[in-house]
Amino acid sequence: MTVHAYAAQSADAPLAPLDITRRTLRPDDVAIDITYCGVCHSDLHTARNDWGNATYPVVPGHEIIGRVTDVGADVTGFKVGDLVGVGCMVDSCQHCAACDNHEEQYCFNGFTGTYGGTDKVDGSITHGGYAQSVVVKDKFVLNVPENIDAAGAAPLLCAGITTWSPLQHWKVGKGSKVAVVGLGGLGHMALKLAHALGAEVTLFSRSPDKIEDAKRLGADHVVISTDDSQMAEVANAFDLIIDTVPYVHDLNPYMPTLNYNGTLVLVGYLGPIDPFLNSAQMVMRRRAVAGSLIGGVKETQELLDFCGEHGITSDVEVIRMDQINEAYERMLKSDVKYRFVIDNATLA
Amino acid sequence: MTVHAYAAQSADAPLAPLDITRRTLRPDDVAIDITYCGVCHSDLHTARNDWGNATYPVVPGHEIIGRVTDVGADVTGFKVGDLVGVGCMVDSCQHCAACDNHEEQYCFNGFTGTYGGTDKVDGSITHGGYAQSVVVKDKFVLNVPENIDAAGAAPLLCAGITTWSPLQHWKVGKGSKVAVVGLGGLGHMALKLAHALGAEVTLFSRSPDKIEDAKRLGADHVVISTDDSQMAEVANAFDLIIDTVPYVHDLNPYMPTLNYNGTLVLVGYLGPIDPFLNSAQMVMRRRAVAGSLIGGVKETQELLDFCGEHGITSDVEVIRMDQINEAYERMLKSDVKYRFVIDNATLA
Repeated sequence: MTVHAYAAQSADAPLAPLDITRRTLRPDDVAIDITYCGVCHSDLHTARNDWGNATYPVVPGHEIIGRVTDVGADVTGFKVGDLVGVGCMVDSCQHCAACDNHEEQYCFNGFTGTYGGTDKVDGSITHGGYAQSVVVKDKFVLNVPENIDAAGAAPLLCAGITTWSPLQHWKVGKGSKVAVVGLGGLGHMALKLAHALGAEVTLFSRSPDKIEDAKRLGADHVVISTDDSQMAEVANAFDLIIDTVPYVHDLNPYMPTLNYNGTLVLVGYLGPIDPFLNSAQMVMRRRAVAGSLIGGVKETQELLDFCGEHGITSDVEVIRMDQINEAYERMLKSDVKYRFVIDNATLA
Repeated sequence: MTVHAYAAQSADAPLAPLDITRRTLRPDDVAIDITYCGVCHSDLHTARNDWGNATYPVVPGHEIIGRVTDVGADVTGFKVGDLVGVGCMVDSCQHCAACDNHEEQYCFNGFTGTYGGTDKVDGSITHGGYAQSVVVKDKFVLNVPENIDAAGAAPLLCAGITTWSPLQHWKVGKGSKVAVVGLGGLGHMALKLAHALGAEVTLFSRSPDKIEDAKRLGADHVVISTDDSQMAEVANAFDLIIDTVPYVHDLNPYMPTLNYNGTLVLVGYLGPIDPFLNSAQMVMRRRAVAGSLIGGVKETQELLDFCGEHGITSDVEVIRMDQINEAYERMLKSDVKYRFVIDNATLA
């Protein structure tokens, strides 16, 4: 089936219309008419080949919400009309220790990305959610609660699960003290989710501008990270710091604010930790710096169910598909509160 | 009581004899005739003021083994003649979250070091185990099994507990895969203890010289860390890496050898992690870098009991007190297998 999509044809070309083919359903496939697709920083990085691994054309998009239009012969978990989602993965080996543990994001044989991945069956390059429809293996399709805003639900599939997974892994709940670094797509979800889990939540921010918004989103406190006295007041305070900053930055000022046994987890930045991390702050209080990548399918379903129960969605700005290049420019300036979501009906 | 000791009088003076005073027993004090005292890298660093916090005279030594010669009126846990040990701490606040959790090493109000610490009662500077005797609060005195070599038991109080604590905290046991970086005082204890706990143990070494000794000490495998093909063979292999290297070094080559969810724990190095640690290897597999400091009193007693049951001691070279300056020079060249221990009878 041929459908309208938007694609980058090279690292320096803007995204533009392109018709692509969606495969005929395999027995375990689900066909989905896409209604909304969130816009993630990864989309931009891949379209512009910032990570050097792009295969053109790139059709980005891995925060997909839509309705089931058809299912393969063996599919029992979904039926036509279901509201569903697809996140960052569309396949994995299904038999390694990570997959057995429902953590396909750490698949030892490599998960298949929703876009730019290599399909395990026919070797084709996968195309993401900047399109009218998508066909995905049933095990990687999520049920989306009908009671929450569908556009606002889209970012749960990447920004949401990326912050939810460490909150779960480090067992955040009532009585936990959590801090969040960075208030963007990921950071605003971290505030909402940590708050809904019952934690006492603090946002680290460089500017007082964000205090009001942070509190609306779920922060109990905002600490201005450039103010030494405010930083000293939160020494040894936090069990977990979720650092969502997507560019290189100094972690050392945050380390003394971790409680003993605390962990700072990086979810937004891949690269050298520059300036040098000082191990003294780690050794003297058994603190850790860790990384965490999105989340597994089971965990993503748990997040969606939790968001349905608690009425949680992302704060979004819905755009037309043809506004995507402008949205990328604004995203680079953090000029969005807090996630762009494409209305895929505008591809018609 | 005046006793013979060895002390540094300044950063550049060799250690030399000095008579010091041990306090009159308080109700909760234990008086100990010291039979052996292990020689730790920290002793040298403090004597030479490498960390800038020395108060002279410095009487080092925090791997103390001895016999009880007297107890205060309120002491019920020890009696004259008991074989006992004292490690790196002689007091802590006893009422913070860390102390309540039997982890006095992370005391929020600061534990009192066995030497160079400030006594919480009279404000005097504590003097360590390079002396004929010591007086210590009962809660910081350990029972030492009579069935193991007393000289070999001394390093359990610092080198032993420093590696035992992370093995316990990260729940190493049968089926665990543990790697150790560095084969010195700490590293050789890590091999013995991880092996005795039932783990499959690997030593990372830069030279093949160490293979035979490592296997004798408990390593199942030795991986030459400068050999890329050997390093590639252990990709994703380890649940825990105990890094005992006491100087700045590159952690990045070890990170891909951690299994997903694995942790590299620094126990020997305080300072900048140079070259830059790359977060990609952490995010993609939820790996962590952590630090760990010695261990609590309860945990140290558990270690001593475990060593009694398993017949584990440190490999030591016993020296006379007057050989200490030469021992420091040899220690700086890693010319010891694997720990110097002072025979304190030579102070008489």
